[in-house]
Order: sequence, then C-alpha cells, then structure tokens
Amino acid sequence: MNASNSTNSTTPRGTQTPVNTMHSTHSTRAIIISIGNELTGGQTVDTNSAYLAGQLGMLGIETLYHVTVGDDRDATARAITEAAAQAEIVLVTGGLGPTADDLTRYALADAMGGAELVEDAASLAELEAFFHRRQRTMVPANRVQIMFPAGTRPLPNACGTAPGIAACIGNAKVYVMPGVPREMRAMFAQHIAPALPAGQVVIIRRILHTFGTGESDIGTRIADLMARDANPLVGTTVSAGLVSVRVTSHAASTLEAERLATAAIAEITTRLGEFVVGQGDQAMPAAVGALLSHRSQTLAMAESCTGGLIGEMITDVSGSSEYFLGGIISYANAVKRDVLGVGEDILAQNGAVSEPVARAMAIGCRAKFNADWAIAVTGIAGPDGGTPEKPVGLVYTAIAGCDHTEVQRHIFPGDRPTVRRRAALAALNQLRLRLRPRPRRES
Amino acid sequence: MNASNSTNSTTPRGTQTPVNTMHSTHSTRAIIISIGNELTGGQTVDTNSAYLAGQLGMLGIETLYHVTVGDDRDATARAITEAAAQAEIVLVTGGLGPTADDLTRYALADAMGGAELVEDAASLAELEAFFHRRQRTMVPANRVQIMFPAGTRPLPNACGTAPGIAACIGNAKVYVMPGVPREMRAMFAQHIAPALPAGQVVIIRRILHTFGTGESDIGTRIADLMARDANPLVGTTVSAGLVSVRVTSHAASTLEAERLATAAIAEITTRLGEFVVGQGDQAMPAAVGALLSHRSQTLAMAESCTGGLIGEMITDVSGSSEYFLGGIISYANAVKRDVLGVGEDILAQNGAVSEPVARAMAIGCRAKFNADWAIAVTGIAGPDGGTPEKPVGLVYTAIAGCDHTEVQRHIFPGDRPTVRRRAALAALNQLRLRLRPRPRRES
Repeated sequence: MNASNSTNSTTPRGTQTPVNTMHSTHSTRAIIISIGNELTGGQTVDTNSAYLAGQLGMLGIETLYHVTVGDDRDATARAITEAAAQAEIVLVTGGLGPTADDLTRYALADAMGGAELVEDAASLAELEAFFHRRQRTMVPANRVQIMFPAGTRPLPNACGTAPGIAACIGNAKVYVMPGVPREMRAMFAQHIAPALPAGQVVIIRRILHTFGTGESDIGTRIADLMARDANPLVGTTVSAGLVSVRVTSHAASTLEAERLATAAIAEITTRLGEFVVGQGDQAMPAAVGALLSHRSQTLAMAESCTGGLIGEMITDVSGSSEYFLGGIISYANAVKRDVLGVGEDILAQNGAVSEPVARAMAIGCRAKFNADWAIAVTGIAGPDGGTPEKPVGLVYTAIAGCDHTEVQRHIFPGDRPTVRRRAALAALNQLRLRLRPRPRRES
Repeated sequence: MNASNSTNSTTPRGTQTPVNTMHSTHSTRAIIISIGNELTGGQTVDTNSAYLAGQLGMLGIETLYHVTVGDDRDATARAITEAAAQAEIVLVTGGLGPTADDLTRYALADAMGGAELVEDAASLAELEAFFHRRQRTMVPANRVQIMFPAGTRPLPNACGTAPGIAACIGNAKVYVMPGVPREMRAMFAQHIAPALPAGQVVIIRRILHTFGTGESDIGTRIADLMARDANPLVGTTVSAGLVSVRVTSHAASTLEAERLATAAIAEITTRLGEFVVGQGDQAMPAAVGALLSHRSQTLAMAESCTGGLIGEMITDVSGSSEYFLGGIISYANAVKRDVLGVGEDILAQNGAVSEPVARAMAIGCRAKFNADWAIAVTGIAGPDGGTPEKPVGLVYTAIAGCDHTEVQRHIFPGDRPTVRRRAALAALNQLRLRLRPRPRRES
C-alpha cells in the first residue's frame, strides 16, 4: 500500500477528530522507530509498532516504514534524524527506562542538534507521588527519567515511572514513549493521539478472517478485487492459522471511505461464503461466542492436547461468561476416565487419541456441565509421543449437542504450538459451521 | 548493543559451524527487512524479524537494524539496495505469495539492476508435487511463485508453495523467504543458516527471567554490571509481566564467550535471589515444571478468571504430562459448586471473588484430581464486573498441598489480557516460591 499513489484531496476530514491544519498536498505520514537490543537481537518481539501503525491508520495517517535499532545512542539519533526528514510524525518507543542501557533521551538531544538535558520539577513530583501510591521506595536510578532535552515537553505516564517526551525537529513532531506496551498505549491515547494532525485522505482499514482454505484459493476467488492500484486496496495475509483479507479504502471523506470499504467487504463475504469467520476483532472465538449468544446457548469444553488453550481463547473475549460455563483440562488419562466419564474399555481399546475417546469426552463434558454444546480435543502435539499409526499432529476434534455428535480427524503439520493452535481453531470452527445459520434457498 | 564497538578478532570460531572465510576486520553484520501492508499498517505483528535476529545472534552475526516496508515495489527495492550497501547478509521476509499484492520478486529484480524474471522448471515440478500430495488443485495464481530474477537461486519450501530466493548484490548475500513464520523458519534452518559465514566475534546471548520486583529495583541491584561498554553487556527488559536480564558476551572463542556469560549469570543470580525464575526458555511455567519434576509431584488447577491460561502455559512446555494432571475451568459459579465442591454457603456469603472461595477451589481441585498440588485463581479481569469493594483487577490466587494452603490477594492494574496474565504468573510464582529449595544456612 502506498497512499501517496492514490487520489489525495485538500478537503478536511468530516469526522470528530481535530480539523487538519496542514496544507501540504500529500496525506500526513508517519515513521515508527523502536529501540532496544532485546528487539534487534531477537529476544523480544516488537508489538508496539504494529499497535501504533493501527492507531495512526484510524486517524488517516499513513505509516511509511518501521525501523528497529539497538540501544545505541548514535544509531538512534541517526534513525530519528532520517525519519524527521521524511515524515511529519515520528513515533519512538523504548530506551526511556531507569537503567544504563536506556539512551533514547540522549539520542533525541543529539538529533535536536545537541540539546542539554534538564530536570523537570513537575515530573519529579509526579514520580515521587507514583512511588508513594505504590508504597515503593524510589531508587536514585529513577531520577534520570525526569531529565529532558531543553526545548521538549514531558508527557505524563499514567502507568509507570518514565514520562514520555514531545519534541519538534524541523517540520516533524517527534514523540518518544516508553517501550512497555501498557505504558506506551496509555500515553499515546491520552497525550499524543489528540494532538496529531488528521490526514487529509481518510484511510479506513477493515479485515475479514477466513478459515478452512488456503491463501492461494482465497486469492483466486477474489483475484479481480486485488488489483495493484485498486481502491479499496485488497490484500491477504496468513496469520496464526487464519487467512485474513485486508481492505484499505482511501477517500476525501469518512462517508465515502466507509462506503467503499463496506461494499468491498460485502462482495468478498459473498464470494468466500462459509469460510468467512468474522471481521475485525471478531476472529474465531468471538465468532463462535456471537453465534452462541444469538441462540442463547451455552458451551463447555474438554481439552487434552490443547491444555486450556480453547478456554483461554474463549474467555479472552469480554462478556464470554454469558455463554461459557467452563471446561475440563483432561491431560492425564485418569482425568478423562474419572472426571469426564470416558469408559476404561474405550480408552484401553482405542488409546486416548482416537475417534471414540474424542466422542466420549464431548458427550461426558456436555453432561457434566449441563451445557447445550461441548467441544472436545484429543491429539498428539509433539514433539514426542508420535508413532507410525498415530503420528505427531494427529488430532481428533468433537462437538456434542442435544441431538448431534460429530468427530473430525486431522493431521496438522508444524511444531507443538502450531499443532495446538490449529487444533483449537479446527474445533471451534467445527462448532461454528454447525451453529451458523444455513443460507436460505430462493424458492 | 553495538558489537562493532567491542574487541574484534580475526581468529576463526572454534565451533561446529562453518569456518569463517571472510577476512574483513569487523564481525559479519546483517539487516532484516519485513514486507507487507499488514505489517506497516499494524494489522499483523512481525515475529519473523525477532526470530531471525535470534538465529543470527547464535551464529555470531550482529543485526544492525530491522526495517518494515509496505507491499510497495519501489520502497522494497530501495530497502534492499540500502541494506546490501551496509551489511554482508540481508534477510527479507514476505511478499512471495501468489496474490497480486506480493511484489518482492519484482523488487529484488529491480535492486539487482533490472534482472528479468524467468520460470524455474525444477520449482514447477516441486510445486505440482506439493499440490498432488495434499490432494489440492493448483490454481494458475500459484505459477508466479516459480518465477525468479535471472542470476538468483530458488530455495525449496518444505512447508508451503512459495520457494525462497538467494541472490548476490555487491558484497551482500540477499535471502528472500516467505512471510508465513512456519515456512520461513524451515527454509532458514535448512537452506540459509548452513550457508552463512560465521561471525569472527562469537556472540553469546543469555537471558534470565525474574518476577516479583520492578525493573528499576533490578537495575539498582546490578547497576555496576550494566556499564555502557561492558563485556558482557547487561540490559533489562520488561515483557509480559516478567523483568528479564539480558547478558551478551563477545569473545574470540566460544569457550571464552561462554565463560564470560556464565560468570555474569552466576553473579546476577546470586544478587537477585528468589526473584530469579529461570534462564532462557525456562520462564515461569517451565520453572514450576522443573521443580515439580524434581520432587516427583503432580499439579492440577482450578481457573476462573484466567479461563484456561495457566493450563495453556503449563502444557506449552513439552513433557508437562510428567507432572500435570489437568484442571477445571470453573467460569460459571455452578461449576465451582458442582464440579469443585465449593460450598453454596461459602459462595453466597463471600461472592465468587473472595479469599474463602479461592481456598475452597484449590482444596476441592486437589481432591478431585488426587494431585500433590493444586493452584486456584478467581478474580475480576474486566473491563466490566468491578464494584467499589471488588474493583477490576482484584484477584485471589491460592495453592494447596498436603499440609499447606495459602491464599494471596492482588490488585493488578491494566486491561483484561494484562490482568489475566499477571494473575496466571502470580499463581504460578506462589507455587514456585513454595517448591523452591530453601538456601542452606552456613553452620
């Protein structure tokens, strides 16, 4: 995607966000910089950049690129300087902590042409209050966190000890935030987003999640919608077992951008049919939850190889207590027998990873919880425990309802986390397809 | 971290990896490029760059920076060109798929000065075999995946349809891989890592996880070890509720680098005492698992607000069936009563989120599973359900053993996923501290 290729307009956005006061002919652009050796060295995955890019997109601000540099004062200063020369907004995360490897404030001062660091009295008072509230002792190391390059403005941190920093370099506004995601998100929402100029082109992003077929098949079904410079721009991504279709529309007004995106989503939904799980935040667990809510039905589950993952996914959705009763993690065979009531003979004859055991787990779980529906999963997640007859990746998923029980056999490729995640998704998808309203036939 | 600041050496590495044939005076350096609008736009978090940086680090190759650009042919070509001018190794992921927004092969051809795309017959045969094995039909769209810039070499994809590409630009080796993590990892391990020149400086990275105190307190306790140009370089990171201490040593030989890292880890472990959970992959769940294994004891759990998360964390560790029996996800109160045996009167008098209920859940769970230890968690993860007396974030964690039951009350700040994760970690930590061997006193 490159919004600067698409039609731009100088019409201000017709939304609640601040009216754009910039008069350039291109949309507002941003660059995101992450700092930390734990990131460049690969010990930690950077989730901040994706979060910030998503937030900027909702404000109509295009992100040109993300860059990640180590805890290195010169490299950080260079990255800030280059970004400030190319974009109107530069968002920086990381390196504001209290320890000796936190160098971002010094690098920012360098990028400003050698600003001095000065202590901010108001920030000191807030920092002391923070420690007092938590009944913790402030160590001297924390004191560096209230030093700011002269000419910058501290940004209060509602969740931690490191204030952020707002600076101007040339035409760019530079905002430095802590690397801890929770602190960064609160600071961005409270002190940065409200101050950002809205883009002159409204960008609306939608995402549609699918399950059950490959990316190339999805791409073939919607090939004509995926042209290089189309508006909306349509793309596909494979992530955590789902193939997602991204729709990005550009227009001079929110109304028009919404109209374009909505029409594309409707067309794609029709073409992809039962593969479509949901939109936006509604990935598999929320989609199943919505179907259960709609029917006022309840769910319980019996998990063996997934070990609680399905429960975790379901309860990650706020409000899931409306339909979710609970579950049994039946890791040991004795639990399958004693808690779920799977017959000793069924276990002995077929082994724990088998069609009859999956079926008995689902039926036993449904009875135990007095639920409308039960899901059961038993399989071999690996890396050990496979045999020629029952290889690693073999998983049985079962659903049981009042007059319906079905079991599916799968062989999932991949490592332990992949097999577990695929198994959880397949089990939820099995229930989703059962609960999904059947399309009415034209008479 | 900036390894080019530290002592370099021309001594080849004393390990099993290929002997270094490069004769430059600096260590081998890499740059990692990720491609995709879903990344720059923030819909997807890039995990590939961290993975690759970690793998490079183990080979003694320093990563200078990561950069993420959109599905834009020119921006991708520019990123490849800039990286090839600065580093000996350029790793690129994404944009090799079968759909119209996959442009990396074209961008690579541009960066090579305008190479033509030619079809590779061997790759076509492999692609057809892939579809045949899976009993799926190859769609014409897949055919673009076997087109390669002239002068490059296809890299087989063991797990998917898109072969990778190996190219040379100036002095840099450029490797392009698919963006799907599973496919990328297999390709890197099989076809790229074995071909990489090993670094002339051996870099060893270790990570020590702590729980129970803040980053500034940890930083204060080991401040003298965190000097800017120390070897090993010591840094701290907060991630998913744990404060981790990273140790990076540089030396001419693996033996010396190991010695430096080991000595630093030993010193840090002594200073941080009971806060130290484990090293490397041994974060909280594996640490608790190792303590249980050592005692030949078993674990079960009763989860309310964590909804299966503790089970998922425990069973994410391969071999956890040795000590983990299973659990009850008691989301609904009826499940706490009927399955765990929490008295109706206890629930009515105290409410589900209370000290007596947490205690009764742990005791009931331990009995139900006939386990040596049980963990129980009940709380209010939010965003709804809080009251002035019982605010969002209030969580009780309990552990029960044969002659010991204890409950802790916590108030966790943060959103729903944060509260749930903190609750799971606090419960596991409570058991860890109980199982941990007491330091022997000198007589």
